[in-house]
Amino acid sequence: MNANLTADRPTFVTHLECSLTGERYAADQLHGLSRAGRPLLVRYDLDAVAATVSRDALAARETDLWRWRELLPVRRTENIVSLGEVETPLVPIARSGGPGVLVKDEGRLPTGSFKARGLVMAVAMARELGVTRIAMPTNGNAGAALAAYATRCGIETIVLCPEDTPEVNVREIALQGARVWRVNGLIDDCGAIVGKGAADGRWFDFSTLKEPYRIEGKKTMGLELAAQFGWELPDAIFYPTGGGTGLIGMWKAFDELERLGWIGSKRPRMYAVQAAGCAPIVKAFEDGVEHAERWEDASTVAAGIRVPRAVGDFLILRAVRESGGRALAVDDGEILRAVDDAARQDGLLLCPEGGATLAAYRQAKADGLVGADERVVLFNCATGLKYPMPPADNWLDRHGTIDFDAL
Amino acid sequence: MNANLTADRPTFVTHLECSLTGERYAADQLHGLSRAGRPLLVRYDLDAVAATVSRDALAARETDLWRWRELLPVRRTENIVSLGEVETPLVPIARSGGPGVLVKDEGRLPTGSFKARGLVMAVAMARELGVTRIAMPTNGNAGAALAAYATRCGIETIVLCPEDTPEVNVREIALQGARVWRVNGLIDDCGAIVGKGAADGRWFDFSTLKEPYRIEGKKTMGLELAAQFGWELPDAIFYPTGGGTGLIGMWKAFDELERLGWIGSKRPRMYAVQAAGCAPIVKAFEDGVEHAERWEDASTVAAGIRVPRAVGDFLILRAVRESGGRALAVDDGEILRAVDDAARQDGLLLCPEGGATLAAYRQAKADGLVGADERVVLFNCATGLKYPMPPADNWLDRHGTIDFDAL
Repeated sequence: MNANLTADRPTFVTHLECSLTGERYAADQLHGLSRAGRPLLVRYDLDAVAATVSRDALAARETDLWRWRELLPVRRTENIVSLGEVETPLVPIARSGGPGVLVKDEGRLPTGSFKARGLVMAVAMARELGVTRIAMPTNGNAGAALAAYATRCGIETIVLCPEDTPEVNVREIALQGARVWRVNGLIDDCGAIVGKGAADGRWFDFSTLKEPYRIEGKKTMGLELAAQFGWELPDAIFYPTGGGTGLIGMWKAFDELERLGWIGSKRPRMYAVQAAGCAPIVKAFEDGVEHAERWEDASTVAAGIRVPRAVGDFLILRAVRESGGRALAVDDGEILRAVDDAARQDGLLLCPEGGATLAAYRQAKADGLVGADERVVLFNCATGLKYPMPPADNWLDRHGTIDFDAL
Repeated sequence: MNANLTADRPTFVTHLECSLTGERYAADQLHGLSRAGRPLLVRYDLDAVAATVSRDALAARETDLWRWRELLPVRRTENIVSLGEVETPLVPIARSGGPGVLVKDEGRLPTGSFKARGLVMAVAMARELGVTRIAMPTNGNAGAALAAYATRCGIETIVLCPEDTPEVNVREIALQGARVWRVNGLIDDCGAIVGKGAADGRWFDFSTLKEPYRIEGKKTMGLELAAQFGWELPDAIFYPTGGGTGLIGMWKAFDELERLGWIGSKRPRMYAVQAAGCAPIVKAFEDGVEHAERWEDASTVAAGIRVPRAVGDFLILRAVRESGGRALAVDDGEILRAVDDAARQDGLLLCPEGGATLAAYRQAKADGLVGADERVVLFNCATGLKYPMPPADNWLDRHGTIDFDAL
């Protein structure tokens, strides 16, 4: 019924390219990192795209993620494994944020997080390229998305997560058909085990940016924003940054849209938001260097951005710097206060990582980095329902005398 | 940016009408139940609607719930309190269901359930009609949706729920700014307390079908289905039935669409799905009566359909009978098995009430009520993430020797 999932549409991938050296790699073959050990980026014949479709034609399609097919790598429609990747809404938070502040609520995607965007693409490409066994380290949400999509098309999945990953994440991963293991370490410790098994040929490594297609899925956040803002872009974007795939992906999307002639050269200032307890990108940004050192003893309530080391660090830092933005750290107290304020004042339940973007926005506004009248987008990367909330213990005895004045 | 939320659009409400006696009530005034103690239904000048907009014009709008504005009661755009009511996707479950089985995944709505549809409408109308204090009995999800929308526009909210309401529901209601109380009883016991306070003028009663507008919000499920199916309708709908607002609402929507000339006279068979441990509608259906007796000692894992008594019982039963459908009961074991199968086989995490519809569909197919080639819609009324899932306890020691063969 949704033509995006049934129509055969032309695809325009020409090749892949090392993000560090520019070395070319053939499309339609299975790749991990480049020979330089860096992420591969997918390149398209954008002139041919522009000659084939218009932005208006795309805007007229059903609004899910697959409307962007000509800018995505999947060649054959039959390889698309969909769970209903809706366009996520922009929700104003006038009270806890301000008049121009919009939350892009990514919790509406399958499995309740923006990880679905990356994984729906990576799984389709894995299927297209004949992969039958995948392993991945995760802080929770990526594993859940992988499990759901891989299960749906019969790909075997092994997921490794830090021992303190929220219970709901571990359970949903298992229930959705993956084999999930808790590891006494952080996400990069899990990643080391996944990498060893991949080197031994036991499975394909689906770590962040270690296969080329998750970034293409995350790119759709930037494409959607452009369409939702009427082919202009907001003034500033606050993005919770762990591995940074989404920030890198949006930056790539804006570049492709400009080359297509669908947007102008104006860019949002990109703010990479991290937790004070795990802020390697912030440190590298402030030190003026291109690569970040591993953050030791990483700790934060926002588990999704507890990523001590990011293989795409230089891509994140480049995008932030080119955009005139910054990398910002917020502490856990501010994160929890922001979550609480958005819920109590605007009725919107953010995840801790989403709360971090609101906290960072407030800080940036106080510091004069953002004007009160600017159009700002905060990314709420997952539904707040997955995270612990404070208890609420009021009891009422229906057999007793009810004090209505006290209700 | 979304014109549905900013454009002033004409409205066509003429009056309200008692669902039992047909007695007329004035629009634009605050109403509870009719003098006969039954739900009020909103009536529109459908000829004027048809003369003003076409179904194609509606289909071309942004796809959220507010695209249906001419068929909704809200007069003034400024009273709309939105949290991003996206059109929910239809997700095929070919393995656990069958080739023609689609799940309408209502967990994508604000606060993670279909209750958002009813409450976004009821709160807008409460605002329009000057209500400042609302109370509601809930099994969880309705209270969460009320809290979010009411909080967002500054309406005070008191929510009463059964003592064993899932922890996540109670917490989200509190976090979203409502005052929430657990009561040692079931939802109708909570409702009795709400009713008493309303009679004393302490608050406005937002119980299911006791105000006229939640049904108008739920009606959009039927409108969306018609648009998603290209202005035809599926062969059968399986709907988890507690208070039954959605089933009644869809039936009303289909009627209005036919009067508009936008669909023909063909209707889906409506299957009202209940749990074997709380099946008053099933009993009344089988007994051939119009009203259901209270179900004593109600008990089921699917808390959302643990409703011993429904004020709209006769409306549910009429729709089911007119459609050629049935009321069906499924036991908790079948519900849990269905949830498990959909997750493990199709990567889709249903809530227990959604699982009940899959269990009922399987049973109906086995009994020859539904053909294997029919187009069937199951309603997953909330995100599966709100409900307990089986534990997953595999541990891996990164310092030890890892047996890769065992992963």
